[in-house]
Amino acid sequence: MKRAVVLLSGGLDSATVLALCRAENYAAYALSFRYGQRHEREIAAARRIAKSLGTTEHRIAEIDLRLFGGSALTADLAVPKARSEEAMAAGVPITYVPARNTIFLSYALAWAEALGATDIYLGVNAVDYSGYPDCRPEFIRAFERLANLATRAGVEGARFEIHAPLLALSKAQIIQRGSELGVDFSLTHSCYDPTPDGLACGECDSCQLRRRGFREAGREDSIRYAR
Amino acid sequence: MKRAVVLLSGGLDSATVLALCRAENYAAYALSFRYGQRHEREIAAARRIAKSLGTTEHRIAEIDLRLFGGSALTADLAVPKARSEEAMAAGVPITYVPARNTIFLSYALAWAEALGATDIYLGVNAVDYSGYPDCRPEFIRAFERLANLATRAGVEGARFEIHAPLLALSKAQIIQRGSELGVDFSLTHSCYDPTPDGLACGECDSCQLRRRGFREAGREDSIRYAR
Repeated sequence: MKRAVVLLSGGLDSATVLALCRAENYAAYALSFRYGQRHEREIAAARRIAKSLGTTEHRIAEIDLRLFGGSALTADLAVPKARSEEAMAAGVPITYVPARNTIFLSYALAWAEALGATDIYLGVNAVDYSGYPDCRPEFIRAFERLANLATRAGVEGARFEIHAPLLALSKAQIIQRGSELGVDFSLTHSCYDPTPDGLACGECDSCQLRRRGFREAGREDSIRYAR
Repeated sequence: MKRAVVLLSGGLDSATVLALCRAENYAAYALSFRYGQRHEREIAAARRIAKSLGTTEHRIAEIDLRLFGGSALTADLAVPKARSEEAMAAGVPITYVPARNTIFLSYALAWAEALGATDIYLGVNAVDYSGYPDCRPEFIRAFERLANLATRAGVEGARFEIHAPLLALSKAQIIQRGSELGVDFSLTHSCYDPTPDGLACGECDSCQLRRRGFREAGREDSIRYAR
């Protein structure tokens, strides 16, 4: 069985990617990060999803991005709430974490090479939320090129492939695709700023995009929201 | 004063790079990694060098590359000793750590972006030890390209520069250059496999290259070797 490393955040995008990877008959090696998030709920969601969709292994890497700061997700900055679609579409949001996907993909590459795997899956998406520079197709292609130059495997002729199957899908299409593949979205966590009780805030960019996605997909979102 | 992030391992190459960066009038932000090395001596050396050459800040990131294994430096594999020059020149050595420089540069990029810096220095070298794929000029150029696509700063027009000033120098030339810049090489640590007392083994690839470098430079290496 061919092996693939899958970046698994605990959100609905990466859950769908894991389901896609499994549907393509890969043995999935899921990789999550504890990186100074504001909450442990993402990790708990990642564990539930890994179990539910069937992974060969699931590892949690500890990386302290608080060391550098520069983002609402790793420093003491307020997460923006109830922004308009226009505001969300304009520029790079404060929830951008410097070089995050570069770091995540570097770790995935290290594990893939140690496993003898050349396939890496991740759930970046450039349609509904194009504000993150490291979610663009040109970034993915540049990393793929780097991977082949950076590694012993690349030198020896392996060709790494970075699979970003959601790149061109809307959130509604992702939800549709995940549902067809049997993803239980009630296990996923999307909110940037959950309440102390663990409810999704309902108003951060991530909650807003999730809710609109379910609405447009004509499906019910069974997680609970504070507002 | 312009800021630069400098990857500082505690070895003689990165010490020389830090001295070069300071000589170019940058405020140096040194970054070292505790990554499951076999010993803490590299970190101790990095601290001494940072202090001696003058850094604005020196941070140590904890990253656990033992999570993935795949190298004599992060797993329980024997470090090769007393290899011939031909053996050292043939293929990628077992001391190669999967994707290590990609991970190190990703962290440097994160810090640089948070600092508003666009210059990153590292001490890779392709002459005396060409076995590591992530020490080649094409790797450095590919990462530079990636950095500009990966970041908010890149989207907003900044141009990252990855400085690898030792790329084309022999070990002897590096020692020569470092000496001219006042680097105290007695503070540096190169050995992959020091004795329990902290002496350099004298026989691993890194010790052999260091000794030959000092010999060819006609300078005395004041660290102590077990053999």
